[in-house]
Amino acid sequence: MTEAPHGIAGAKPTGTLERHGRIGTQREEEPEGTPDGQEAAVLLRESRASVDPALRSAIASLPASMRRIALYHFGWQHADGTPASGNAGKAIRPALVLASAAALGGPTARAAAVPAAAAVELVHNFTLLHDDVMDRDATRRHRPTAWTVFGDADAILAGDALHALALRSLAVDPHPASAAAAARLADCVMELCEGQHADTAMERRAPDEVTLDETLVMAEAKTGALLGCACALGALYAGAADEEVAALDAFGRAAGLAFQLIDDVIGIWGDPRRTGKPAGADLAARKKSLPVVAALTSGTPAAAELAELYAAPYEEGKEDLERSALAVERAGGRDWAQAQAADHMARAMQELARAVPDPEAAGGLLALAEFVTRRST
Amino acid sequence: MTEAPHGIAGAKPTGTLERHGRIGTQREEEPEGTPDGQEAAVLLRESRASVDPALRSAIASLPASMRRIALYHFGWQHADGTPASGNAGKAIRPALVLASAAALGGPTARAAAVPAAAAVELVHNFTLLHDDVMDRDATRRHRPTAWTVFGDADAILAGDALHALALRSLAVDPHPASAAAAARLADCVMELCEGQHADTAMERRAPDEVTLDETLVMAEAKTGALLGCACALGALYAGAADEEVAALDAFGRAAGLAFQLIDDVIGIWGDPRRTGKPAGADLAARKKSLPVVAALTSGTPAAAELAELYAAPYEEGKEDLERSALAVERAGGRDWAQAQAADHMARAMQELARAVPDPEAAGGLLALAEFVTRRST
Repeated sequence: MTEAPHGIAGAKPTGTLERHGRIGTQREEEPEGTPDGQEAAVLLRESRASVDPALRSAIASLPASMRRIALYHFGWQHADGTPASGNAGKAIRPALVLASAAALGGPTARAAAVPAAAAVELVHNFTLLHDDVMDRDATRRHRPTAWTVFGDADAILAGDALHALALRSLAVDPHPASAAAAARLADCVMELCEGQHADTAMERRAPDEVTLDETLVMAEAKTGALLGCACALGALYAGAADEEVAALDAFGRAAGLAFQLIDDVIGIWGDPRRTGKPAGADLAARKKSLPVVAALTSGTPAAAELAELYAAPYEEGKEDLERSALAVERAGGRDWAQAQAADHMARAMQELARAVPDPEAAGGLLALAEFVTRRST
Repeated sequence: MTEAPHGIAGAKPTGTLERHGRIGTQREEEPEGTPDGQEAAVLLRESRASVDPALRSAIASLPASMRRIALYHFGWQHADGTPASGNAGKAIRPALVLASAAALGGPTARAAAVPAAAAVELVHNFTLLHDDVMDRDATRRHRPTAWTVFGDADAILAGDALHALALRSLAVDPHPASAAAAARLADCVMELCEGQHADTAMERRAPDEVTLDETLVMAEAKTGALLGCACALGALYAGAADEEVAALDAFGRAAGLAFQLIDDVIGIWGDPRRTGKPAGADLAARKKSLPVVAALTSGTPAAAELAELYAAPYEEGKEDLERSALAVERAGGRDWAQAQAADHMARAMQELARAVPDPEAAGGLLALAEFVTRRST
């Protein structure tokens, strides 16, 4: 349980880039099917089977105009309202809720935690709808984002409706933990707002005005908080003690930060399995991702080179993204990110052992944490 | 208790307009101090005294970036973070929560309902933040709107944070009614989303494509729903029976619709007390308000004249807004709106009598309902 996850330990800088393709493709939502991820794949499939009916029934209760946008966003309908085969993402967050409940309370707690799992997934999707409007992201899960199809106003409103639906699904749940779960989820939303604020504010600032510490705080708020909250809600539904809830929250946060670090590495050097975001995409977008900020603040000659590149917008044909990536690497950004990811995964394992000392009971959460961080092998 | 409120019964079409001034001034938030409104003024002041500390303490718990925007929006801080004297609106909704609780449960219920009153006011302000972004409204409560000061992204995020804060304040409240109140408030948010969607969609459509029925449904969702919810939450906190809760919800909805009808009359013919929105403003903005849609769908010659005017944007100096207002009046839009407002107020009085048969106990709610609908005298 405490061994370093294969993904991070096995990753080696290669100095080469995957072919640079279309920018803005979302990599987060890719399904995976490697033999290593088999346990996680089963957990994700079983979680979908448990949570999808609750999600669909919650969305069916929305007013017609909001329902239409939500069904489109979840990939269950085309824009014209006809049924779609569906690509609602891999739904790692509800799986974490159910795995946490199962780890601390067995199958009964897992079954009881379905409304909490649905609530977390609804909150995740509400934030995606709003973030896409703010970030002007045009593609999500390989489809046009809701705001490009329905307009900004309707995308904002659909996000608001999913947010209300999430907290409603907890408010009507008679489980003794539902109120504590709702309070925790609402706190998490506020932290997500702070994280998104920090992200958009940082992207507007000059590269030399961004510190590594604030980038890490932002990443924890934007990515770690909801993974931690998912695990904490599962623990609450298992009737866990405060310390166990806190430890599972810390586990999810640390795994979330490790995920973000690896995701940022993929955003520069590409996904070796070529299923996700193309290499160089984050550099072309001048994104102040974690490895980039680590490089920029390294005080090395390569940092100055990178700062110069980041001072002007990317021009295709003029700038060699492989050279820019090499600057990040020479400035130590890649090594730093991989060491940080390994550190955070080690921290996650410690917290998991604290919350769930029985390795067998912790197996599901371990498999999911490895699944989300295994992308750099 | 069943007499028609003075405002509606006493209003007479005059065919004249107040001086046409700046468009977009918000009339909804004007403080009033007429002798008629003394009981309401006292209730609003007492409500503020009870709810403001809860609101301020809730907002103080927000992450720093969100707190700053919220404090600006509530009028408690200037954009630079220095304290402001504050103009957070007249806060009719929390006053309705407390008056409903007091009507059905006395002072104990009123005191217990403060978290619900704060939650309703937080939801109201979350929707104002988002609506201003969608509608590109630049002024609210005589100040620049949050999105004009902080940008769209931060105004959306601050709205999201206030939404979460509202439901959090109910989730942490140990009162036995808090979960039912949270579910009802979340349902109300979804209806508000539907109402705002319908409003923005209708404003984009041609004047002859909008029916009076859908305009009324939209107005009930956009304005009536939250006033009804405020009353229902007060009843829930008083431990009222389902029928009383439903009757107070219907009371608030009907009073809300009456308010909207009178507000729309003021948007065309002006506020006789000249404290609010200038005459003709809604016509200049080509707003499909209730009297306008009633006029457009009347099948009269004046309807055709109005439709022709609405087919092109307003040009100052070229179009005489007094003549346009006269067209609405000749098409019957003004009489219809005032008759409808009187009908809805009569309906509100019936529902109030059903929920609170004792006239003395119902006095506060009656005073607040008359206060919000008395504007056309």
